[in-house]
Amino acid sequence: METEIVHAIQDEYPDDFAQCFGCGRLNEHGYRFRTGWYGDQTKTIYTPHDEHTAIPGFVYGGFIASLVDCHGTGSAALALHREKGHEPGDGVAAPRFVTASLNINFIKPTPQHVPLIVIGTLENVHPKRWKVHAKVYADGKVCATGEVDAVVKPDTFGN
Amino acid sequence: METEIVHAIQDEYPDDFAQCFGCGRLNEHGYRFRTGWYGDQTKTIYTPHDEHTAIPGFVYGGFIASLVDCHGTGSAALALHREKGHEPGDGVAAPRFVTASLNINFIKPTPQHVPLIVIGTLENVHPKRWKVHAKVYADGKVCATGEVDAVVKPDTFGN
Repeated sequence: METEIVHAIQDEYPDDFAQCFGCGRLNEHGYRFRTGWYGDQTKTIYTPHDEHTAIPGFVYGGFIASLVDCHGTGSAALALHREKGHEPGDGVAAPRFVTASLNINFIKPTPQHVPLIVIGTLENVHPKRWKVHAKVYADGKVCATGEVDAVVKPDTFGN
Repeated sequence: METEIVHAIQDEYPDDFAQCFGCGRLNEHGYRFRTGWYGDQTKTIYTPHDEHTAIPGFVYGGFIASLVDCHGTGSAALALHREKGHEPGDGVAAPRFVTASLNINFIKPTPQHVPLIVIGTLENVHPKRWKVHAKVYADGKVCATGEVDAVVKPDTFGN
């Protein structure tokens, strides 16, 4: 069953990389998504707010895209962090990934006012690149699927 | 050059379908994206707020996904509305589309504090379905491309 994510990878992002509107623990206006291990898969849980609507009663697709996006970069960070021998909670700074591409398929309307649970499956395609295959569940049903192509943030990002 | 969208399709959505977090004119907490014609292409303009960051100085990918999503459904609505002989501004209720799939490619980091301009090209794939090919510009450069598969909201949506 759904429970809180106790040890989230986002807790281990360096402060400079913890400002993200989706998953930055230091962004007071953002969603503060939290992603952790779920066996050898990954998990993010979030209950959208009333305003995150598409049509009343259903969750906005852009919100779901945001959720999958940060779930994807967080999942890739979990994977590389573990490869290096670390786990969220041990206080070691985690790597930061950025999104190269994001694909979302909306399978059925996603109901509001229930927790959304994202489960991710990892595919390592390069030492610094993971594909994350995500399923978004509401009330136990898959409402959307997604794929995030996540790459380690280049040192030149933005330069 | 970038100017405001004077006649936006979102102005013509019936009130019940104008609550969207992305583009609903009645959602006080949302972005209120506005999409209009730009020749035979479509255009949405928006300057993200400070909090819509990924890494300081750069726009959050989930925000860009949201922008492209609503630009896509708005563009498809513009197309079908015109097919029926109507234009935004003439006060006729516009059709409402939903997103079947959303694909975003992040080409380069998107700078903050400048207007983002989305230009859409329409591809009609079925009487009730359009693909919208979008380019997101900042400072005159393409930072992201996207594709939205938009379908007329089924009467059964959510039933």
